[in-house]
Amino acid sequence: MVYSALLLGSLLALPAFGQTFRRTAACPDLGCVFPPDQTDFIAGQTFDLRIEVQAPVNGSEAYNNGTPDSNFSLKIGGQGGELVDAAQFFGLSDPPVEKYNFTYYEDLFAEDAKAPTPVNVLAKSYRNLQLYNPGTYEVVLSYNNGQHTKATWTVLPLAETKKAKNVIFFVGDGMAGSMLSAARLLGHKTINGKYQSKLKLDEAPGYGSQMTHSLDSFITDSANSASALFSGKKMTVNGLNAYTDSTGKPFGDPKVETIFEMFRRIEGGQIGIVSKAYIADATPAAVCTHTSQRSQYNTIIEQYLNGVSGNYSWYPWQGVDLLFGGGAENFLPSNANGNVSQFERWSSYGYQVGYTKTELEAFDNSQRALAIFTQGNISTWLDQNVYTDALDLAVTPQGKRGARDQPGLKDMTLKAIDILHTRAKERNTGFMLMSEAALIDKEMHVLDIDRALGEVLELDDTVRATLKHLEEIGELEDTLIVVTADHGHGFDVFGSADTKYLKEQKTDRTKRNAIGTYQNSGLSAYQVPQNVLPTNQTIFKSEQGEGFPITWDPRYTIAHGMSAFPNHRDDFEVNKDHERLPATKNQKNSSDSGYFFNPEDNQRGFEMTGNLGINDGQGVHSLVDVPIYSFGPGHELFRGILNSPDLAFKIAQALDLGKNSNVTSYYKK
Amino acid sequence: MVYSALLLGSLLALPAFGQTFRRTAACPDLGCVFPPDQTDFIAGQTFDLRIEVQAPVNGSEAYNNGTPDSNFSLKIGGQGGELVDAAQFFGLSDPPVEKYNFTYYEDLFAEDAKAPTPVNVLAKSYRNLQLYNPGTYEVVLSYNNGQHTKATWTVLPLAETKKAKNVIFFVGDGMAGSMLSAARLLGHKTINGKYQSKLKLDEAPGYGSQMTHSLDSFITDSANSASALFSGKKMTVNGLNAYTDSTGKPFGDPKVETIFEMFRRIEGGQIGIVSKAYIADATPAAVCTHTSQRSQYNTIIEQYLNGVSGNYSWYPWQGVDLLFGGGAENFLPSNANGNVSQFERWSSYGYQVGYTKTELEAFDNSQRALAIFTQGNISTWLDQNVYTDALDLAVTPQGKRGARDQPGLKDMTLKAIDILHTRAKERNTGFMLMSEAALIDKEMHVLDIDRALGEVLELDDTVRATLKHLEEIGELEDTLIVVTADHGHGFDVFGSADTKYLKEQKTDRTKRNAIGTYQNSGLSAYQVPQNVLPTNQTIFKSEQGEGFPITWDPRYTIAHGMSAFPNHRDDFEVNKDHERLPATKNQKNSSDSGYFFNPEDNQRGFEMTGNLGINDGQGVHSLVDVPIYSFGPGHELFRGILNSPDLAFKIAQALDLGKNSNVTSYYKK
Repeated sequence: MVYSALLLGSLLALPAFGQTFRRTAACPDLGCVFPPDQTDFIAGQTFDLRIEVQAPVNGSEAYNNGTPDSNFSLKIGGQGGELVDAAQFFGLSDPPVEKYNFTYYEDLFAEDAKAPTPVNVLAKSYRNLQLYNPGTYEVVLSYNNGQHTKATWTVLPLAETKKAKNVIFFVGDGMAGSMLSAARLLGHKTINGKYQSKLKLDEAPGYGSQMTHSLDSFITDSANSASALFSGKKMTVNGLNAYTDSTGKPFGDPKVETIFEMFRRIEGGQIGIVSKAYIADATPAAVCTHTSQRSQYNTIIEQYLNGVSGNYSWYPWQGVDLLFGGGAENFLPSNANGNVSQFERWSSYGYQVGYTKTELEAFDNSQRALAIFTQGNISTWLDQNVYTDALDLAVTPQGKRGARDQPGLKDMTLKAIDILHTRAKERNTGFMLMSEAALIDKEMHVLDIDRALGEVLELDDTVRATLKHLEEIGELEDTLIVVTADHGHGFDVFGSADTKYLKEQKTDRTKRNAIGTYQNSGLSAYQVPQNVLPTNQTIFKSEQGEGFPITWDPRYTIAHGMSAFPNHRDDFEVNKDHERLPATKNQKNSSDSGYFFNPEDNQRGFEMTGNLGINDGQGVHSLVDVPIYSFGPGHELFRGILNSPDLAFKIAQALDLGKNSNVTSYYKK
Repeated sequence: MVYSALLLGSLLALPAFGQTFRRTAACPDLGCVFPPDQTDFIAGQTFDLRIEVQAPVNGSEAYNNGTPDSNFSLKIGGQGGELVDAAQFFGLSDPPVEKYNFTYYEDLFAEDAKAPTPVNVLAKSYRNLQLYNPGTYEVVLSYNNGQHTKATWTVLPLAETKKAKNVIFFVGDGMAGSMLSAARLLGHKTINGKYQSKLKLDEAPGYGSQMTHSLDSFITDSANSASALFSGKKMTVNGLNAYTDSTGKPFGDPKVETIFEMFRRIEGGQIGIVSKAYIADATPAAVCTHTSQRSQYNTIIEQYLNGVSGNYSWYPWQGVDLLFGGGAENFLPSNANGNVSQFERWSSYGYQVGYTKTELEAFDNSQRALAIFTQGNISTWLDQNVYTDALDLAVTPQGKRGARDQPGLKDMTLKAIDILHTRAKERNTGFMLMSEAALIDKEMHVLDIDRALGEVLELDDTVRATLKHLEEIGELEDTLIVVTADHGHGFDVFGSADTKYLKEQKTDRTKRNAIGTYQNSGLSAYQVPQNVLPTNQTIFKSEQGEGFPITWDPRYTIAHGMSAFPNHRDDFEVNKDHERLPATKNQKNSSDSGYFFNPEDNQRGFEMTGNLGINDGQGVHSLVDVPIYSFGPGHELFRGILNSPDLAFKIAQALDLGKNSNVTSYYKK
């Protein structure tokens, strides 16, 4: 880890590039080890090991005319013990050497000049490995006449007790703490500074936060960050439980087993996946699929059912127990999936298949189930519950406009619990459910704050209903519930906007004077009917139940801002017709292909020039640590400030997943 | 609290104004009770009680031609018991009736039309009250022929045990959680996704968050929010431990006692105040001063020494034990303070007086002390430690440019602990210290992110040093340390900026393409020397010690944004010469008196049009809940999601401040 003084001298002479693009993630030298230095493992967790030796042909790291050292070797050993050849250590035959090349840009100037750096590579992969003994291991790749890339791995101690039988892991995708503050303001009322009701999440007995950064960049995407939460390994952007190697290919990258997969393998437990996104999206996919390219939607659907196929397979995967979400387009026959109907395929595997909320509710709780309600994402809570005309635009699984028989997150989650609970009880196992409030993120990306906050409130309502339902079915004492986000968006409320005043002003500058800050922000006008003073101390009831606004369209709305955005207009009014589209490309201006103000969006608002690259038409993820709320047995493990992989390790601890010998249960379909 | 159906009907007919301006805070009807409904008290906490009966002359709430009901009455009683006349209940003679009027605007249209609403008022104040018995109390103001304004007050239970002898309360003014994430990125290094060192705050055994909203608006200022933290009562913006009545006068408003004042009164304990702001600023002032107008700087200085004077005084206040900060201008003789030198005055009261870090360090630890190092705020950590030429602009207490002998927050805090500890030990008492990292807020207001994050890192360094020092002097086991903010600013990091690329681009739009998001954000370049790749795994040492950047001026900086801002330019480079000034008024354009881009600021950056009212030249506070970090005895009380007043109550609990009889110790100077 710490370079010698001599080597440091040569590194200090390098130019200061390498931030925007990296030759290969987690490969600071010309030799790469995956999993990299400082990786932690659950005892017995399955993984692949890959090494690469790279030789750039030109550029600042050029080596030996681009000829990588073929005389490389890999040794491994327990700390303090002798290092032995890796194949010998794992009891494998020596894997074949791969040989290929790739290119990358050293910086933005090189990209503008179209001057890539070619790199030649030799590589080896060791697959289906486990480390059973807690402690540290040293891994040393030797190459280039005495250079070493070293990795220290740690296998975490075994749990002392099993605390929980079941785990429900809620992910509020993109949900920063600031959004909880804003959602509380919309959904709950203060009198004289005291909230008369609060979010269910506000009552969590366990509260903490976690750092979401990537393996090799400080801003993450959702594949990367969900993999960290579910496998305990940070990845590169777009990676699903697989370290992105330098091949550029989507499969074959070194994989890591998730806690959901371990739970199934070791206990034969029930696994459920629920999301409001298209179900091949990154967060649900991170439960049990493996690829360096999250966009491999068709393969992800297939992996839910059959696991990784072919040479890279570890052990038979017998399908998730339930999968509820959107994204029917990836299940229908297409060129991309070899004209297979995944609906028919799943049905042939014995799954109940449904397409509507009505069918969801009619599912037999003792049978495995697939339910896909829309093409694309499921409709937002606001569209399903308040501005329902927007459902005319939603597309049914079969491709028709007007998907009106859709469930919300609560409907899907409670039904998932019923099925998992019933099946687990019949088989004397437990269950793990991942339920994702996916559209918080989608709506924040398009700056549709009202829809995003509706999703936050729906998540909170779902958690409230989940706790109640677990109590009703007698599983509350045995079920750990963790609610967190995979990353944030830079967002905050900074005052109120007098929308009536704003739209009557004629210029962008005078419109801005409609904003009230500090004492002029006033009280939440979302918790009184439209013509009632916000200072009114009556508790009004929302049509959508406890914890939702009385109106989404008060005269005085929240004034909010993002830290990163494309060009757009702000008017601080709810978009009743459909989700926002803040920026579009200007067809008339052929000299600038970037994004401009969408002429159709928020026409009465004032213009905000973006601060993102002009090819970004949406907001982006941010650095902020995100909150963790926990309930039930083991909740105390999730207090304080954690790193994203810690959540996987703590869930493994609560479920007692770490094993010091090979444990594979027979899963009963 | 809940209106009758009849009354509700009439309220529903009102127009939807009243958000931007309020007739009077916490006065939803025409009768006001301060402290208002739902106020909580520490047993024995001193307070004033005020009632008002208002009659608007015109407008939507016009009543009886503007003649308030003189036939009003106030009754109070323990819950379930008989209500008795308030004067009788408190054993006072009936206070005189005040009669006056004020005006306010119903909304922005009324303001533009210069059409205020006059209101006539009758009022009474009952002063120097205590409620000793835990439980609830009912307060009923009757007026206008049967209308009632009711308040339910709760006196919280007494503590079962005293957990802590001393309390150190750190306030990171304006410090949102997002700033900790960013400060960690600058001050600490990751290797393969794992931080090699962390913030000291990351290790806090107690972690929670708190809601910062005001009594009557969802965005707070620092007076209001610090009063909530220190007295357990939310206030109106600009209010320091006093409910803002409708008189418009700065004094005479109903006051509430702070935990610092109670600690002094009950235990005779030592009180210290440290801030990097001018010391009459809101957060230090909230420790023990009382006014509805935080701008009463000269009186605040006098109150630190002698408490509230005249008719409104409760009991003798014998001066804080130490006061360290900036703001000498309020101590020098001026017309505003009757040409009194407060330096001479404090000296005549027996205080040691100092003006430099050298003098601070030479203070006798057994004597009370006043140390004021600058006019205006103390210089930022970045100016004191990295870009020290900026100190040429800093003004000494005596009014000369070039104040170079200034302390940092750590210097002031450790010396304060030494004095408080020594004096407390000699008197067999404990101590309470409020130490404020004030400039996080000041720098966030002017969008100077580097200076703001330097202050966050300085706070973290100060907490680290404080824990170490408490251990050295044997007080660690007896000292509760709470670190929190009074409010946030909407801020986040969303990527990196290639500053070299940015400044070479010619247009605002192409400059934006220098920003790297997601995988292109890369690793922190602040933790390697300027010409070293951020992927380098060496741990470099900062010249400023553990937990600070290696460089503040890397080619690849953080790309950051605020949720609210005036017009300004972003170039994402540190400002080496002095603090930023993002927006200025355009002298040439007499038709628009608002703020525009400062022509001198970030000239190579791209323009961002603001989203604040054009008369706001700075960023503003935001809604986000802020983090709480706690260490030492009682830290577990500060876990989870709290409301800002809860912190005062929990500190009172840890110190056992609640008393069911009048306790007043003799404080030994």
